[in-house]
Amino acid sequence: MSRLETELREQPQALARLLERQADSARTAARLFQRRDIRYLLIASRGSSSNVARYAQYLLGRAHRVPVMFATPSLYTIYGQPPRLAGALVIGISQSGASPDVVAVLAEAREQGRPTLALTNDGESPLARTAEAVLPLEAGREQAVAATKTYVNSLGAVAMLFAEMGNDATAREELARMPEALAAQIDLSVDEMPPLDAYRDAVGLTVVARGVNYGTGFEIALKIRELSGLVTEAYSPADLMHGPIAAIQPGWPVVVVAPSGPARPSVEEIVPPLRARGARLVAVSDVRAVLRRAQTKLVLAPGVPEWLSPLTAVVPGQVAAMGLTRLRGLDLDSPVGLRKVTLTR
Amino acid sequence: MSRLETELREQPQALARLLERQADSARTAARLFQRRDIRYLLIASRGSSSNVARYAQYLLGRAHRVPVMFATPSLYTIYGQPPRLAGALVIGISQSGASPDVVAVLAEAREQGRPTLALTNDGESPLARTAEAVLPLEAGREQAVAATKTYVNSLGAVAMLFAEMGNDATAREELARMPEALAAQIDLSVDEMPPLDAYRDAVGLTVVARGVNYGTGFEIALKIRELSGLVTEAYSPADLMHGPIAAIQPGWPVVVVAPSGPARPSVEEIVPPLRARGARLVAVSDVRAVLRRAQTKLVLAPGVPEWLSPLTAVVPGQVAAMGLTRLRGLDLDSPVGLRKVTLTR
Repeated sequence: MSRLETELREQPQALARLLERQADSARTAARLFQRRDIRYLLIASRGSSSNVARYAQYLLGRAHRVPVMFATPSLYTIYGQPPRLAGALVIGISQSGASPDVVAVLAEAREQGRPTLALTNDGESPLARTAEAVLPLEAGREQAVAATKTYVNSLGAVAMLFAEMGNDATAREELARMPEALAAQIDLSVDEMPPLDAYRDAVGLTVVARGVNYGTGFEIALKIRELSGLVTEAYSPADLMHGPIAAIQPGWPVVVVAPSGPARPSVEEIVPPLRARGARLVAVSDVRAVLRRAQTKLVLAPGVPEWLSPLTAVVPGQVAAMGLTRLRGLDLDSPVGLRKVTLTR
Repeated sequence: MSRLETELREQPQALARLLERQADSARTAARLFQRRDIRYLLIASRGSSSNVARYAQYLLGRAHRVPVMFATPSLYTIYGQPPRLAGALVIGISQSGASPDVVAVLAEAREQGRPTLALTNDGESPLARTAEAVLPLEAGREQAVAATKTYVNSLGAVAMLFAEMGNDATAREELARMPEALAAQIDLSVDEMPPLDAYRDAVGLTVVARGVNYGTGFEIALKIRELSGLVTEAYSPADLMHGPIAAIQPGWPVVVVAPSGPARPSVEEIVPPLRARGARLVAVSDVRAVLRRAQTKLVLAPGVPEWLSPLTAVVPGQVAAMGLTRLRGLDLDSPVGLRKVTLTR
């Protein structure tokens, strides 16, 4: 079995470990949000971690009504003119904790006396050493270049912060059931992945998602892209309608991520214009009516609360990415020209 | 001549009109930034206006050190749980001023007692009526679906805000010279556009840009995509390195936007890995050393200050988009399936 598949299957266990071991750190970290002068969150991240940041933007923005902003590292590293961060709580998300650009943002925040938090899988990393508080991801060593368990555990860490910020017992219970839900989803996706041969000669594909699953769309696109080399991209339905839909030609595959929840009707609205353009539709959903409209159905197990659905909705994307990569005869553990740790500034 | 080309050629005149007529509005609008409790800007936008927002993020973030955040309309329109906007100055950017999602963000901001500003080409639009202050774009009527003069005038409006926020006479003078620089750039790009026949059968292309021109990369990608139907995308070099570069296959065209300035070396660092993958390089630059490394050279006229370079750097992209569209036998004024005003929530 490839390292990637091994790690993909370890996700429920890794998530359970995070929830078990880091409840105290999550509580401590959540206290940072209570500082009186905090007006917004600033998140620094790259790659898969930026998709976790998108989850945080919707989840924390929505329930705790905290606006979330993404950092612009070049202002710190290239222009040397970082913004004034009064009002910010600054979070760095990085599996390796090593990328200089993410570290630079947190270092500047500390310099300006702002509270800082690191979500990282390496408690000894430069990022962990720079931040005031650390929430270790507990994913265990991840060897495949493409992130799986560090991604899901980063989502889990954000979900823990959410539950602790609200001191919300229901949220904690719902989250505690996620390792099991994740295991069920992995079984379902591995056992019942529909054949993907029809996409063997695809050049690329587009993923559409919104709300708390907006980041899921980006992560599915990234996973397929890193592994299979397909030209993938992600859009919200509204952004797609404002011009980019022009490139959807007959036969172009479009993955519609639409778990049950408030965002679903808005995502479904994109289906008729996509059909009119002759797109081949792939649906990721637990809703029969959504699945029925798609040529390829990636079924989500029911019963997951919407706010936690990103932890399972990414799984069929991960499994499909493996399938597409095998179809193209590529190595799952060594995507061409990529490294596990990318150092950018 | 197509409407698009007519409007593209009207850009210098439209920009001059904005600078001439709206100096007072810009000064008034800039005063909003002086309110004591402002910690950050929140921008709501879609389509080309989101690329203007990216310019604002780098320009205002850098020189005036104001952090800039983008709105997440679904929190307002779908989840009905808008973030608390204490500390925010809220700006809506929209050519038509009609998109309900952008209007919803400004309406909520007013509800919460926050200062609001609209950048719109329609002073009677719902957006203009919702905002406390309006900076009219003065682009005149734009009929082609793909934005040209409203895009450049929106950049110009942001540049005016920048100059007025700092009460910066040098910046004002530099900006006053831009209509002329823009006219020179349009002549240069139209007269010396290299043949694009080699890209006739391309499926798509990738644009790489960073810093103040990060939004230029997105706008060039969007313009080519809307008009020609090519699958285009934009990345910062750092984001491309964190995984997505895996999809750059031999022969895939990559446009590198690298005008002189602090971001240029960092953008150039992407050239060797792109070459190693066999990408076909297109350079947008005023720097001979950058142009020399590319198969296709889109020359920028020299002498434009970096902070204003987005107003001219987009032009070769606009002209190339027209060229690619003609090569593909498509109608410049009616991109398949797009409308001038897109109403999304």
